[in-house]
Amino acid sequence: MDAHATPYETTVRDIGTYEDKMVTLKGWLYNKRSSGKIMFLILRDGTGIVQCVVSKGEVGEGLFSRLDKLSQESSLIVQGLVRKDPRAPGGYELAVTECEIVSEAFDDYPISLKEHGAEFLLDHRHLWIRTPRQRNVLLIRSEIIKACRDFLHNEGFVNVDAPIMTPAACEGTTTLFPVEYFGEQAYLSQSGQLYNEAAIMSLGKVYCFGPTFRAEKSKTRRHLTEFWMVEPEAAFMGFEEMLRLEERMVCYIVEHILNNCEHLLREIGRDVERLKEITPPFPRLTYTEAVDLLRRKGMDISWGDDFGAPHEAAIASEYTKPVFVAHFPTQIKAFYMQPDPDNPDTVLGADLLAPEGYGEIIGGGERIHDYTLLLERIKQHNLPMEDYEWYLDLRRYGSVPHSGFGMGIERVVAWICGLEHVRETIPFPRMINRLRP
Amino acid sequence: MDAHATPYETTVRDIGTYEDKMVTLKGWLYNKRSSGKIMFLILRDGTGIVQCVVSKGEVGEGLFSRLDKLSQESSLIVQGLVRKDPRAPGGYELAVTECEIVSEAFDDYPISLKEHGAEFLLDHRHLWIRTPRQRNVLLIRSEIIKACRDFLHNEGFVNVDAPIMTPAACEGTTTLFPVEYFGEQAYLSQSGQLYNEAAIMSLGKVYCFGPTFRAEKSKTRRHLTEFWMVEPEAAFMGFEEMLRLEERMVCYIVEHILNNCEHLLREIGRDVERLKEITPPFPRLTYTEAVDLLRRKGMDISWGDDFGAPHEAAIASEYTKPVFVAHFPTQIKAFYMQPDPDNPDTVLGADLLAPEGYGEIIGGGERIHDYTLLLERIKQHNLPMEDYEWYLDLRRYGSVPHSGFGMGIERVVAWICGLEHVRETIPFPRMINRLRP
Repeated sequence: MDAHATPYETTVRDIGTYEDKMVTLKGWLYNKRSSGKIMFLILRDGTGIVQCVVSKGEVGEGLFSRLDKLSQESSLIVQGLVRKDPRAPGGYELAVTECEIVSEAFDDYPISLKEHGAEFLLDHRHLWIRTPRQRNVLLIRSEIIKACRDFLHNEGFVNVDAPIMTPAACEGTTTLFPVEYFGEQAYLSQSGQLYNEAAIMSLGKVYCFGPTFRAEKSKTRRHLTEFWMVEPEAAFMGFEEMLRLEERMVCYIVEHILNNCEHLLREIGRDVERLKEITPPFPRLTYTEAVDLLRRKGMDISWGDDFGAPHEAAIASEYTKPVFVAHFPTQIKAFYMQPDPDNPDTVLGADLLAPEGYGEIIGGGERIHDYTLLLERIKQHNLPMEDYEWYLDLRRYGSVPHSGFGMGIERVVAWICGLEHVRETIPFPRMINRLRP
Repeated sequence: MDAHATPYETTVRDIGTYEDKMVTLKGWLYNKRSSGKIMFLILRDGTGIVQCVVSKGEVGEGLFSRLDKLSQESSLIVQGLVRKDPRAPGGYELAVTECEIVSEAFDDYPISLKEHGAEFLLDHRHLWIRTPRQRNVLLIRSEIIKACRDFLHNEGFVNVDAPIMTPAACEGTTTLFPVEYFGEQAYLSQSGQLYNEAAIMSLGKVYCFGPTFRAEKSKTRRHLTEFWMVEPEAAFMGFEEMLRLEERMVCYIVEHILNNCEHLLREIGRDVERLKEITPPFPRLTYTEAVDLLRRKGMDISWGDDFGAPHEAAIASEYTKPVFVAHFPTQIKAFYMQPDPDNPDTVLGADLLAPEGYGEIIGGGERIHDYTLLLERIKQHNLPMEDYEWYLDLRRYGSVPHSGFGMGIERVVAWICGLEHVRETIPFPRMINRLRP
C-alpha cells in the first residue's frame, strides 16, 4: 500500500475525468509488453482499452514478476494514477501503483492475437466476442436497436410483442421450424405482421421487435436461421407515407450511430464517409425499371422473376444511398399485398436495398383491406381457412387501409458496420450447421 | 362540403391543441347514442376516446340516417370543430361537420359491451384487445418495457440478444419445448443467463430482453408458456450491489409509469396510491426468517422446502413494498448459484416478491466464479458435460465475481396494472390449451 488517497472506482471510458487522480479499474489482460523494469499491460474492461504502465520500482519485484508471467485474459483489479498521454489511443494511460490478480487464465486461451478460421472462431464464439472488433459490433448493434425503438416511440408507435409460437405460417411453409406444443404442431414465427394488423385496430400505430425464424437450408453470408426483426405497422398509413417512414427511420439510425459510435466504426475500419451520405430522399425504382436496368447491364432476367442477391447488388451499385424497388409483380409477393390501383398485376409493396452490395434490409407494403379480395387471395394461395378466420375478422369489423414493413436487424448491422457476413452481427449466430455454443 | 378552412389532421390525444379549430380524426365507432336530431358517436382512434356530436341540420338527413344505423367498430374519418367541454372525459368534444364511413363493420361483432367469459374473450383476443381496458394494459406494458430499457441504458448496460434455440437447458429439463433443428434436437430458451455470462466478459454490463419458454402443464393465473424476460448481468457486481440495482430498477419503472400512465391506471381501476408507496429501500428477509414467519402464521412448511404461490403471498402481505427473500437453501436453487460464505448451505440468491399477492417478479443472485466448484456442481446435477464446456471456459479464462437477475415482464405488468391473471398482460397469450389466435 502507498500513501495515495482512496482511489475512484471508474471505467476505461471515463478515466479522462480523473486526470492526475488515483483510480481503480477492473478488467481483463488483453496484451502485454515488457522491457526489463517497465511493463505495459493492455487492459480491457468492456467500456474500452487502456495501457497500464507497471514499473518494478513502484509495485515491487514479487508482483512485477507475477504480472510478467500473467496469461492473456486473466482478470485484474488495477490501481493507479491517470496520466494524459497524447500517444495513447484514448488519450490517457494508467501509472500502476497496485494490482490484484482476480483469476489467472489457464494458459491455453484458444483465441490468440493471430488469425483464426471462421469455423474455429464460431466454435469459440463465447470467447471470440471479447476481441475488440466483435465487441464494437455488438455495441453498435445495441445502439442500432436503441435507435429503432427511440425513433418509433417518438413517432407514436406502441411496442406490441407478437407471439413466437404460432399455428400458421406467414411467409410460406417450406422454411418453418416445427415445435411440439403439448401434442399439437406449432411453428416458430417468421413475422409478427398478422398480429400487428390486429393490434393497430386497437392502438393505431404499433411495432413488434423480436426474434424470427427461418429454416434456411442455404449457407449464404446473408442468412441466419434465427434473426431479429423490427416490424412497424400503422392504421390509415398509405404506401407513400410508409416509404417516407422507412426513409426517416433509416436516416435516424445512421445519424444516431454516427453521433454515438463513430469511433467504434473507425476502429473496425468502416469508411464512415459512406454513411454520411445517407440522407433523404432515397432514390426509387419500379420493379419494371429495375428489370430494365438489369437487362441493360447484361443480366439474364425476365419480368416476373424474383431478384436474387446478385440482382440486388447490381441495382444498389448504381446508388450511394439505399434505393427503393417498388411495385413488384403480384405473383412473386405475399398473399396479403394490396394491388396497385394503376396496375393490378403489381402490388403496393417495396423493398429497400442497402448500398455497397448489402442487399435488402427492409420489405414492406400496403396490405389488402377489402374483405372479399383478401378471402379470394387466401383461397388462391390454398391457405388453411380455419387459421385465417381471425385475420379475416380484421376486414369484417372496421377494416382500414394500412401498411407496414419489416427491417432485419442483422442486415442493417452488417451494412452499417461494413461486415462481409451476418454471422458477426448477432451475439450467438444460428445457421444450418450451427446451434452451439 | 362546407366553407370551413382545411382541417388539421390530428389524433384524439392531441385535439386539445386545436380548440375551436377544424380537425380530422380517423378511428373506429366504439359506441353511439341518438336522440332524434342529435347523435353522439363515441370514436376511438388508438390514442384515446372522444365524443363526436352529429346534428341532422349540419350533416344532412342522408348521412345522419346512415350514421344512425352504423354498427359498432365501423371505421370512420370524421371532420369537425374541437369544442371545450368540461364534462367530456378528455375535456373536449367534436362538433361534426363531415363524416366518411371507411368500412362498415359486419353487424355480428362478437365483443359487445356486455360481459363475456374468459375463454370466449381469449378466442377473440384479436378483437378483445380493442376494448379500452385491454388497450390500456398493452400501452402500460409498452411503457414498462421502455422504462426497463431506458434504466439499463442509463446505467451503462449493453443490450445483447441471447439465442432462442439452444442445445441445452438452463433451468431443468421437465418444462422444455423441443424444436426440430435440421434433424437435431434443440430447445427453446428458458433464460439467456448463461449467454449473458459470456457477454459480460466482453462488455462488462449487459442485458438480454426476449421471449422465454416453459412448457408449464399447470393452469395457473401466473403462468404462460411464452413470456418476456429482461435479464441484466454484470461483471464484478456482488450480491449486495445486485440487490440495490434491482431496487433502483423497480422504483424507476414504477415512477415512469406513474409519470406517464397514471390516467391509464385510473381508467382501469388501479389504486395508484399503492404504487406511490414503492420507494427504496425494500424490506429484506432471509429464507430462514421467511420460513419462521410462515410457521408463525400457521403454514405447514419446513426449512428446505421451496415456496409456492400461497407462501409468497403470505410473506408479501406483511409489507406494502416489494420484499426480498434471500439466502435460499442450496438444494432448491440452480447449480450455478454462489454459496454464501457465511453459511455454505445457502446461496447468494434472492427473489423479489411484489406486494398485494402478485408473488415473485425477480429471481437473481451471484454466480459461481470458481472453476473447480462449478465443475463439481455440473457433475452433481448430472448435466451433460459437453454442453457446458463453453460455460466452464468462462471460469477458465479470466473468471470474475458476477451477478445477475431475471425479471418477468408479464408478472410486473400484472402487479402494476392490478390484474388477476397474466393472460391479460401480453398481446397474444400462450398457455397449455391456447396457441390461437
